Amino acid sequence: MSWEDNIRRVEPYTPGEQTKNPDIIKLNTNECPYPPSPKVVQMAREMDIEKLRLYPDPKVTDLNEAWAEYYHLQPDQVFSGVGSDDVLAIAFLTFFYGKKPILFPDITYSFYDVWADLFRIPFVTKALDEHFKLRKEDYFGENGGVIIANPNAPTGEEADLAEIEDIIRHNPDSVVIVDEAYVDFGAASAVSLIDKYENLLVVQTFSKAWALAGLRIGFAMGNKKLIRYMNDVKFSFNSYTMNTTAIRLGTAAIQDVAYMHKIVTDTVKTRERVKPLLRELGFTLGDSKSNFVFVSHRSVPASELFQMLREHDILVRYFSKPERINNYLRISIGTDEQMDRLLEVLKKYLENK
Amino acid sequence: MSWEDNIRRVEPYTPGEQTKNPDIIKLNTNECPYPPSPKVVQMAREMDIEKLRLYPDPKVTDLNEAWAEYYHLQPDQVFSGVGSDDVLAIAFLTFFYGKKPILFPDITYSFYDVWADLFRIPFVTKALDEHFKLRKEDYFGENGGVIIANPNAPTGEEADLAEIEDIIRHNPDSVVIVDEAYVDFGAASAVSLIDKYENLLVVQTFSKAWALAGLRIGFAMGNKKLIRYMNDVKFSFNSYTMNTTAIRLGTAAIQDVAYMHKIVTDTVKTRERVKPLLRELGFTLGDSKSNFVFVSHRSVPASELFQMLREHDILVRYFSKPERINNYLRISIGTDEQMDRLLEVLKKYLENK
Repeated sequence: MSWEDNIRRVEPYTPGEQTKNPDIIKLNTNECPYPPSPKVVQMAREMDIEKLRLYPDPKVTDLNEAWAEYYHLQPDQVFSGVGSDDVLAIAFLTFFYGKKPILFPDITYSFYDVWADLFRIPFVTKALDEHFKLRKEDYFGENGGVIIANPNAPTGEEADLAEIEDIIRHNPDSVVIVDEAYVDFGAASAVSLIDKYENLLVVQTFSKAWALAGLRIGFAMGNKKLIRYMNDVKFSFNSYTMNTTAIRLGTAAIQDVAYMHKIVTDTVKTRERVKPLLRELGFTLGDSKSNFVFVSHRSVPASELFQMLREHDILVRYFSKPERINNYLRISIGTDEQMDRLLEVLKKYLENK
Repeated sequence: MSWEDNIRRVEPYTPGEQTKNPDIIKLNTNECPYPPSPKVVQMAREMDIEKLRLYPDPKVTDLNEAWAEYYHLQPDQVFSGVGSDDVLAIAFLTFFYGKKPILFPDITYSFYDVWADLFRIPFVTKALDEHFKLRKEDYFGENGGVIIANPNAPTGEEADLAEIEDIIRHNPDSVVIVDEAYVDFGAASAVSLIDKYENLLVVQTFSKAWALAGLRIGFAMGNKKLIRYMNDVKFSFNSYTMNTTAIRLGTAAIQDVAYMHKIVTDTVKTRERVKPLLRELGFTLGDSKSNFVFVSHRSVPASELFQMLREHDILVRYFSKPERINNYLRISIGTDEQMDRLLEVLKKYLENK
């Protein structure tokens, strides 16, 4: 017997590599290649640092009000947390408390099964079709909840809003969470359905379109009852999670929607320009509606390309499992210059194969 | 059947009141009455906001290295999280995974039983003596872990380091967590025992002595194995929790230990000055080693004084339960001016009783 017998032993998740080397082209974690709004810089310069001696506002009032206004919702229809991972984890804890298994696709955001295991929530995964598309009927049966990433990760594929609505409509007895981390890059948001379905929770993030991954801010939107239940759970175990700088800088960012639209438009333009160029190089890829593309080469293994790009100081993401996607690379959309460099390196390598 | 049947319903914790009214004297949440170090202000002005587009360093390297240097530890003996609440919750998840009950005092930090319930950890509480002092022998029996706040909350009482060491020594088969949120205000830290006992984890916070409650930073210190287990659990479900501003501003704060010592010395001086003045007014109080006093009046109920002070724009903390402490007020040590105002209001009220 030793103290080590009482310890939880887990397989830690390996996040996408972070680097301090500024020469590296970082296309591995779907960050925005453009800086945050100048309004965020200004707020950082003006912020009342003396106030940091006080606990943050546990209700995150200012940020929730700004976000609610942006989406024409009431402030009590918004919940914010430390990144959408925190928001999703609290949503799992809150809404997936029944005995029936929750449902999500076999290929999707890799933390859904992690949280389900952590919180002892039974789950069943449903296979995407051969084009990595959702089959909505898979989610019509009995369940304890549904979570769908739309656009999906790491595929970038969008499900039509009509399909999402069908899933929500078929599940009056479960909460359906739509995880829209990448929605700003061209997909239709389910926020428009919130007033129609009280079992719908929509989750978004500041880490992609808003260029603020470093602040850790995510949002959930739904009817007031859903949001109140989430707040109850949050306040039951940790009242002060989002720090004051996140609240202040995040609120400033929302004042500059025009800037967000501009960098999103630039990213989408680059993505659409790059797609046919990748196909010319022999890659297969779907019609990503996110800030990344998910690609597989007709002859060269993904793991080999991943290593080769790394040696050329270009980081992309390679997942060795699940098996269905172990020959794919997930490549974030960087600036035009970064993507040109990527294409150049790929072209040179593939020509010599 | 409805979606609401699958929902976790909890009693939300009510945190100490936060107010936007600057005229209120806020002695209810044990915040530091002095601003953070000027080095924090300087870093906020100089910080590279462009970098906020990137995810934070998930390993929190800079902050952990600075904290390790401050305590003459190795960086891999330090774990940091979003406030000590986050650190403690992860420590509970990691180290209290056995079948035997964990032990802690009946009067202590109110989140221990909350996390135990949340993570389904069995627990038994041990009654403090009539002076709210720990009886070390209570923690010598079989258990799945021990957690002791030292100085204790909300009493402010210190256990001698020799007693803490005795508890650690009697528990080679459990992890003993010493929660030292208030240790800087005059108590002896168990950090000095880390190299001697591999089952010891010491937790501290930035929210009190460092005047940075708004940043949400807490630390755990222990041997490398303990810290690695905590990191594994953290990385298994959420890699990016502490945001970049917290890492940068927190690291800057640690560069200014002299400033922290100064504001702590001022707080202790005020506390010791106030103690006899409160006794003169008819209050009973122990020998608090924290940045608050825990007081009970010989004739006027605590709930009545709480309300009266509130009407005079002075917020203090009153806990209606547990019953043993429902006639006490927890009063944070503010500036000398704030404490003088408190004493004046109390004096006037008590004279007229």
